[in-house]
Amino acid sequence: MAGEILFFKGTKSCVIFLAFCLVATCLLAEAEVHNLTWEVSYQYKSLDCYKKLAIAINGETPGPTINATEGDTIIVNVKNNLLMENLAIHWHGIRQIGTPWSDGTDGVSQCGTMPGDTFVYQFVVDKAGTYMYHSHYGMQRESGLYGLIEVSVPSGTKEPFTYDGEHGVVLSDWYHSSSYEQATGLTSIPYVWIGEPQSLLINGRGKYDCANLSASVCNAANPECAPSSFTVVPGETYRFRIASLTSLSALSFQIEGHNMTVVEADGNYVEPFATENLYIYAGETYSVLVTANQSSSRNYWITTNVVSRNASTPIGQAILNYYPNQNLIPPNTTPPPGPLWNDVDARKNQSLAIEARQGYIQIPPHPDKVIVLLNTQNKVDGYTKWAINNVSHTLPETPYLIALKKNWLDVFDQTPAPESYDYENYDIYSVQNNTNATTSSSIYRLEFNSTVDVILQNANTMTANNSETHPWHLHGHDFWVLGFGDGKYDMKNNDANYKFKNPIMKNTVPLHPYGWTALRFQANNPGIWLFHCHIEAHFLLGMLVLFESGSSMVSVPPQANMGCGKTKSLMQP
Amino acid sequence: MAGEILFFKGTKSCVIFLAFCLVATCLLAEAEVHNLTWEVSYQYKSLDCYKKLAIAINGETPGPTINATEGDTIIVNVKNNLLMENLAIHWHGIRQIGTPWSDGTDGVSQCGTMPGDTFVYQFVVDKAGTYMYHSHYGMQRESGLYGLIEVSVPSGTKEPFTYDGEHGVVLSDWYHSSSYEQATGLTSIPYVWIGEPQSLLINGRGKYDCANLSASVCNAANPECAPSSFTVVPGETYRFRIASLTSLSALSFQIEGHNMTVVEADGNYVEPFATENLYIYAGETYSVLVTANQSSSRNYWITTNVVSRNASTPIGQAILNYYPNQNLIPPNTTPPPGPLWNDVDARKNQSLAIEARQGYIQIPPHPDKVIVLLNTQNKVDGYTKWAINNVSHTLPETPYLIALKKNWLDVFDQTPAPESYDYENYDIYSVQNNTNATTSSSIYRLEFNSTVDVILQNANTMTANNSETHPWHLHGHDFWVLGFGDGKYDMKNNDANYKFKNPIMKNTVPLHPYGWTALRFQANNPGIWLFHCHIEAHFLLGMLVLFESGSSMVSVPPQANMGCGKTKSLMQP
Repeated sequence: MAGEILFFKGTKSCVIFLAFCLVATCLLAEAEVHNLTWEVSYQYKSLDCYKKLAIAINGETPGPTINATEGDTIIVNVKNNLLMENLAIHWHGIRQIGTPWSDGTDGVSQCGTMPGDTFVYQFVVDKAGTYMYHSHYGMQRESGLYGLIEVSVPSGTKEPFTYDGEHGVVLSDWYHSSSYEQATGLTSIPYVWIGEPQSLLINGRGKYDCANLSASVCNAANPECAPSSFTVVPGETYRFRIASLTSLSALSFQIEGHNMTVVEADGNYVEPFATENLYIYAGETYSVLVTANQSSSRNYWITTNVVSRNASTPIGQAILNYYPNQNLIPPNTTPPPGPLWNDVDARKNQSLAIEARQGYIQIPPHPDKVIVLLNTQNKVDGYTKWAINNVSHTLPETPYLIALKKNWLDVFDQTPAPESYDYENYDIYSVQNNTNATTSSSIYRLEFNSTVDVILQNANTMTANNSETHPWHLHGHDFWVLGFGDGKYDMKNNDANYKFKNPIMKNTVPLHPYGWTALRFQANNPGIWLFHCHIEAHFLLGMLVLFESGSSMVSVPPQANMGCGKTKSLMQP
Repeated sequence: MAGEILFFKGTKSCVIFLAFCLVATCLLAEAEVHNLTWEVSYQYKSLDCYKKLAIAINGETPGPTINATEGDTIIVNVKNNLLMENLAIHWHGIRQIGTPWSDGTDGVSQCGTMPGDTFVYQFVVDKAGTYMYHSHYGMQRESGLYGLIEVSVPSGTKEPFTYDGEHGVVLSDWYHSSSYEQATGLTSIPYVWIGEPQSLLINGRGKYDCANLSASVCNAANPECAPSSFTVVPGETYRFRIASLTSLSALSFQIEGHNMTVVEADGNYVEPFATENLYIYAGETYSVLVTANQSSSRNYWITTNVVSRNASTPIGQAILNYYPNQNLIPPNTTPPPGPLWNDVDARKNQSLAIEARQGYIQIPPHPDKVIVLLNTQNKVDGYTKWAINNVSHTLPETPYLIALKKNWLDVFDQTPAPESYDYENYDIYSVQNNTNATTSSSIYRLEFNSTVDVILQNANTMTANNSETHPWHLHGHDFWVLGFGDGKYDMKNNDANYKFKNPIMKNTVPLHPYGWTALRFQANNPGIWLFHCHIEAHFLLGMLVLFESGSSMVSVPPQANMGCGKTKSLMQP
């Protein structure tokens, strides 16, 4: 029953005819089913010329791009060919309406899929736009298990902009240490920070400086690390679908000599604006239009650079190839270094510039409640953590979705998660003791269909004069981006602080240093959903919360989602 | 019921009084229960001065030694604190009579224990002797997840030799690459061999040459890699309980200026013989008696070196400390380099020298059948494998023990595994095509309580003039070591080839290059049991077989053993 509804999502008239038409006929006419088979394994890759293990899907890192049309059903049979490591894959930006068990989040929607096992994800891509997928298991994303999802508008439907061709761009940062090494340092006493990435990759290609390393370890001539190139025909306009899959880095993206017009963000249309550089945070996607209107006698640099952290990481480079020039001929110009890492105002201005496109504005309903989330770095029992309202989250061994359905009260902390902090007395500009910081698996329970405002409040870290940028991502929903501001959010004058003019909907939004970000969403997708900082290390250290709503309306997840924690008690030997 | 029998194993009279005495009282009088709690995690360790990840139990690598008395029950609550990796721990040498679900073998007795989960192993140590435990999941053992099990004779019982004190010695080889890196190379096309280990460790301490490496990576002054030292009082005699947990290396072990008297092998008493160096293969244990009868004015070197492979690995060193000298003062003599790596005859001679001790000889029954197992290196679909009778084994996703109990015929290949090879025509001295090599999950089904001879037949690898040493280990049983020989075993004159004089029982035995090894066991332990080469890389590449016998008499394994493969179908959401 659920499956049938899924197949016809977006074509309601067809549902009416369900009893009269054969399913197959209806599918052919209305929506396609993409049945993909993926084998996930470790492979040696030289993505930035330095040879190290990466996780590959069917041999590729990043994985294959999923191309589909709005309303299509995606079935991905994920075979775990890792030797000892489990996995879970999240379909980032896909709301999983009616299919919360396919959200691919370890500890929330499923147990990890064990080596040798196959997990079948099935979901509908119900909204055109640019999305991504990536591992949501431990720090596994860091190993390269990610890729793009490109969803086109249905045939006969027009987008509010035109272009002649398109290119997919996966931006990521790349470490030479393993996810195990990183995680061990982060969870040790003394705390060992992962440091800045060795490289930035554009479609899985970067350039590490191989000087002083043997060619068997690092070979600059390896074709695997030749720069990505994007071919354009002079005079034509291209849509670049850009996703940031970084573990840590906030990025700027630029194309030498070309302006970009931003038209889409996280699957929602943006009132177009032009920019020389696109700021993009981990978990965000954008579409920009680029017209090949420069001299066609040469190629141009495409670069990406780290912002918001004073990183030593060199810029990532690719080539905009003007047809019919050879695609790998590098321009003899200096690659644009991108904006200064510490130009916070420029980044805030871009955040404020992103509005919903005229004709696509969805008016948010009035909120039923406000939750304020203070973001802090903390120490708990000597371990460095990140916490929300002084609670650093620990995921339970048994996935929440199953625990909720089975009413297992002992699986997670039943105390309600804190909805605010001591905002009158907390000084966000200084290092705070946070002596009452703790860990918990508690959740926020929201009334189904209620509308909730969430205020993300940034603060100083445990280092003086330091506040970081956190890209927050919500599963299962888009939210309205109501506003950004500096300093402490004024709880007494909510609306006055909101931007609120044609707010765009997104699924990921930055929280800027020492600032606040306000967003609103409708808890209208039955289940339990992560809301978290998309920096891999921050997530590992507890920078996440969970929103439950209407989970009683969801059926029990399939057997495939089980196998860990208390779910074993469901087995009848 | 099974549990009760376990508690009183070895004290049959107590079982009779079961109805009359309280369990607790009885336990106090007869056998102890050791309830251990282990947390398994990755930690940075500098075992050979080079800093890298190791798997630790309660912070220690190698893990803690289990000390118990014959008849005791061991309960180990293993909490998996690895971030993304499952685990399983095998209690090597413990026969698990009546508890096959505690054998700790992924794919055979259990699914891997997932991160966050706790697996409770419970078994009786029913025979005094020296044993070991180690990971039996993928190539996880290579990360240092291992330790000693020392089982004493019951109070009131005397061993056939005396000593004043004892020392435990864990020998291992140590790689700086991760288990993931090793496994990926081994299972790739082109095949990448793991190479020789960087160090040999004695009780987790070795000495890598830190020259040209920064002190943050390799620090020769790190106390973590100070040599192990074993203190002896002049004139006294010590039992050294020695276990080899190497991934690859066959070793020789020697103590400068001291003879060793071998008295125990794999938990069985050896007719004593003296030696200057003890050859020990991965998976073997020995007890040797050493008398501190040299000048007490100084300390002495203890060393271990690689044999049977032309390895560049430096010798491992420890210190025999004569009380009251300071324990870490190195002798100013040259550490004994040990025997030549290629002195095969010396190793064969030691194999032949190991007989059961007078008074402890168990006469083997006549065999009911003979199985011949040809050991070869093969190519299957371009992948390098190891095969037995041209079948390279692949473990199923669902553990055999559960599949057998549930009669799931589709879990593994139901074709009987081959009991012989073309011994008339196969040339063991040359590189063979082995074009009919294949992979399979087939097993050997043995009549319960039958007696089976197994002839291990070595051959040339895929490299000309090369035949390797393979230490074969049987789970769930001890076997009689009937003989060793050179060349091809003569199938027509079985007994003539057997040594058969006072055969000792063991659980691990070497197969020498271009030779054969004959052993016999009684299939009297209901369940399904691995028999495999104990070299980690060879096991990964399929050098294993399975012996099933009387599995119908075993009850279905507990829920904790499940969670992977077809066991998920047992869940009732």
